Amino acid sequence: MPRRADQMRLGAFLYPGGHHVAAWRHPASQADAGIDPVHYRRLAQVAERAGFDLLFLADGVSIRGDDLDALSRTAIRYVGQFEPLTLLAHLSAVTERIGLVATASTTYNEPFHVARKFASLDHLSGGRAGWNLVTSADPREAYNFGRESHLAHARRYARAEEFVDVVAGLWDSFEDDAFVRDRAEGRFFDPAKLHALDHEGEHFSVRGPLNVPRPPQGHPVVVQAGSSEAGKSLAARTAEVIFTAQDTLADAVAFYADVKGRMEGHGRHPDDLKIMPGAFPVVGRTEGEAQDKYGALQDLIHPVVGRSLLEQLAGIDLSGHPDDGPVPEAPETEGGKSRQALLLTLARREGLTIRDLYLRVAGARGHWTLVGTPDRIADALQERFEARGADGFNIMPPTLPGGLDDFATLVIPELQRRGLFRTAYEGRTLRENLGLRRPAHRRHGPARRA
Amino acid sequence: MPRRADQMRLGAFLYPGGHHVAAWRHPASQADAGIDPVHYRRLAQVAERAGFDLLFLADGVSIRGDDLDALSRTAIRYVGQFEPLTLLAHLSAVTERIGLVATASTTYNEPFHVARKFASLDHLSGGRAGWNLVTSADPREAYNFGRESHLAHARRYARAEEFVDVVAGLWDSFEDDAFVRDRAEGRFFDPAKLHALDHEGEHFSVRGPLNVPRPPQGHPVVVQAGSSEAGKSLAARTAEVIFTAQDTLADAVAFYADVKGRMEGHGRHPDDLKIMPGAFPVVGRTEGEAQDKYGALQDLIHPVVGRSLLEQLAGIDLSGHPDDGPVPEAPETEGGKSRQALLLTLARREGLTIRDLYLRVAGARGHWTLVGTPDRIADALQERFEARGADGFNIMPPTLPGGLDDFATLVIPELQRRGLFRTAYEGRTLRENLGLRRPAHRRHGPARRA
Repeated sequence: MPRRADQMRLGAFLYPGGHHVAAWRHPASQADAGIDPVHYRRLAQVAERAGFDLLFLADGVSIRGDDLDALSRTAIRYVGQFEPLTLLAHLSAVTERIGLVATASTTYNEPFHVARKFASLDHLSGGRAGWNLVTSADPREAYNFGRESHLAHARRYARAEEFVDVVAGLWDSFEDDAFVRDRAEGRFFDPAKLHALDHEGEHFSVRGPLNVPRPPQGHPVVVQAGSSEAGKSLAARTAEVIFTAQDTLADAVAFYADVKGRMEGHGRHPDDLKIMPGAFPVVGRTEGEAQDKYGALQDLIHPVVGRSLLEQLAGIDLSGHPDDGPVPEAPETEGGKSRQALLLTLARREGLTIRDLYLRVAGARGHWTLVGTPDRIADALQERFEARGADGFNIMPPTLPGGLDDFATLVIPELQRRGLFRTAYEGRTLRENLGLRRPAHRRHGPARRA
Repeated sequence: MPRRADQMRLGAFLYPGGHHVAAWRHPASQADAGIDPVHYRRLAQVAERAGFDLLFLADGVSIRGDDLDALSRTAIRYVGQFEPLTLLAHLSAVTERIGLVATASTTYNEPFHVARKFASLDHLSGGRAGWNLVTSADPREAYNFGRESHLAHARRYARAEEFVDVVAGLWDSFEDDAFVRDRAEGRFFDPAKLHALDHEGEHFSVRGPLNVPRPPQGHPVVVQAGSSEAGKSLAARTAEVIFTAQDTLADAVAFYADVKGRMEGHGRHPDDLKIMPGAFPVVGRTEGEAQDKYGALQDLIHPVVGRSLLEQLAGIDLSGHPDDGPVPEAPETEGGKSRQALLLTLARREGLTIRDLYLRVAGARGHWTLVGTPDRIADALQERFEARGADGFNIMPPTLPGGLDDFATLVIPELQRRGLFRTAYEGRTLRENLGLRRPAHRRHGPARRA
């Protein structure tokens, strides 16, 4: 297999005290991380010094779970942390090069607000904003927005398809050079370079224009995470980065080929999209140290938390099923379909008990777990990158700040020695660093009703 | 009249290049201020060094005006500037004491999002967030959110009344000491200290809880700006700061007595609310210098801009009416009722022509204009403060950064010499500096449907 000419992209996916479900209990994490700006400022600066392409923040507009006992034992189910856009706007003041990607749902937001806030973040950061577009699948989110149930999967994606087009159109409200600011003439902007959107669609009517100048990047980078059929289709048409969970090399290569293969049908080049699966690295100077680190975290998983998380990730009801027994069958849900299938296939393939499966997934929540020395972890990342199973990785440190420090000081130097990762930022904007072209301004006419 | 025991509060109301409608054309302003983070960081630090209680940012979710020629000649009608919450989150990283007040409308937002973002800002800033609650009256805003017209005045205020209660309830989702973070026990928060809201009302159904710990201030400070009957009623029940436009001393004293007099009916003490009218100071070292400064700005008002702004502020159609003629009668609008009445009364009282009136209001847009030496300006502020026409002022610098520098270096030292303004911050949070008590946590039961 030929070595790739490009280098891998790396995201630093920040969760309050780390991605391991029990991280907050571990001394390498900070227990009150979720609401400590000093913690996040330090993480952002560590990641920037290490050359990460971007910071990545997930989001949820409700707590996740009705089992209060389980919920009260975890820090990572959106129980108490910063809202991501405000946090990234804060971090934009103390960083200069690293990209800032926040999650915002298309299900309970208005496209005008989303377009405006990300455009604002792009201006605040000098062109470093990215929007991770998700749909909301948790009924508890619906209850916070006057709905009695969450939208069905197909309906959610239909709304997302239209939402992203409206947002892109709003970002093009002004041409790049519209603001002439001619003091002598008294002309602040050229009215011929302002375009209303006049969008009338199935889900949204938005006249526009957006009242923010065109973002420095043209459009903030659009990130997506869906791996369902509808998710892949939306991504092939509109995404520029995909964050995904692929457990095996074969799955990763198949997913990569599948999504990139769909792009030509939308007039896009495969390089217009960077596929960055999650990777959960537990780094030790020796294999033994790495295994010990991982073991220490696993030992901190409370059984109540493990079972509850498995129930939620797989969309199954475990009540009455013992920890040592097999994982029961599950009805197909409207929620995260792809993750459910992935987990149940894994359990069947390896004959896992409920405890086995929750120990397997509770830590990294179904993401690719890498436990080992910097060399071994670099080997695994390199293999998947060169096999075209990934264009890079969204690094999910098990603990924070400890796990990010480990990756930055131990793994990244090894990737750099191999020529797989940058030693200095190539550009000023997130697009420049990711190697994504800047979208040309498009004049939008009124959209026709479908 | 006895001198007051308390000191005046001062807000720094930041508009991109200044509040004067032609500010962006003046050399003391920065023409591209609206999207320059360096400009805002500098303003925030100047204001903090001067001891201002808070930064104040207005907002609008559309451009304001259909007359493209007029619109393209101004920088202040929300044509191209940062979204305020992202901007304040950014500024929270480079300031330590000054309050951060952003406007967010109750008309086209969801209470869950508003509660969450301001709670997040309060955590990011260590207790310095404030929410300026407004309703949206411009039809162009409605068009950006799938509506064919804006909500009627009464309906907007009914929605706002319920909205603010839902937001306050969400801020009380967790008790102050809910997050125990007991690593040994594996208990992140005490489930007995988490309270869902279970709100079911006329306008909103919100189950909650909010997924953010209780804000450092308990509740971010609630600011309001409405001066209509419905606005005053809402403010007397829920506001902690009022930003208002009162042109004369008599009007200011009457408004102050009116609103404070309504508070007892809601079980509130008059000191629980600070009334801070806008003040537009043009400062010169001599009267002549001040008048020249003002004149230079007034000369920069393009007639197209002046007429258009007057049409919008007063809700009247001037077409066919010459600049030198009288101001025509106007139909009562659903928009900013109080401002319309104020302007038309002013025109009748002083017999102003259209040009006279637009020159009068275009600069400060109907706010109290003070042109003079630091001494004279301090006299006027002191008089209004001591007459109980105000608890402080929201300072609207004509140009930025120039006008803020003038006020900070020339007027504030004079106020300090008179003992009217602090020389050092009293506290760490906005509430502490404003002298507002921290609200105790309230357990909310399910709200009854009206």
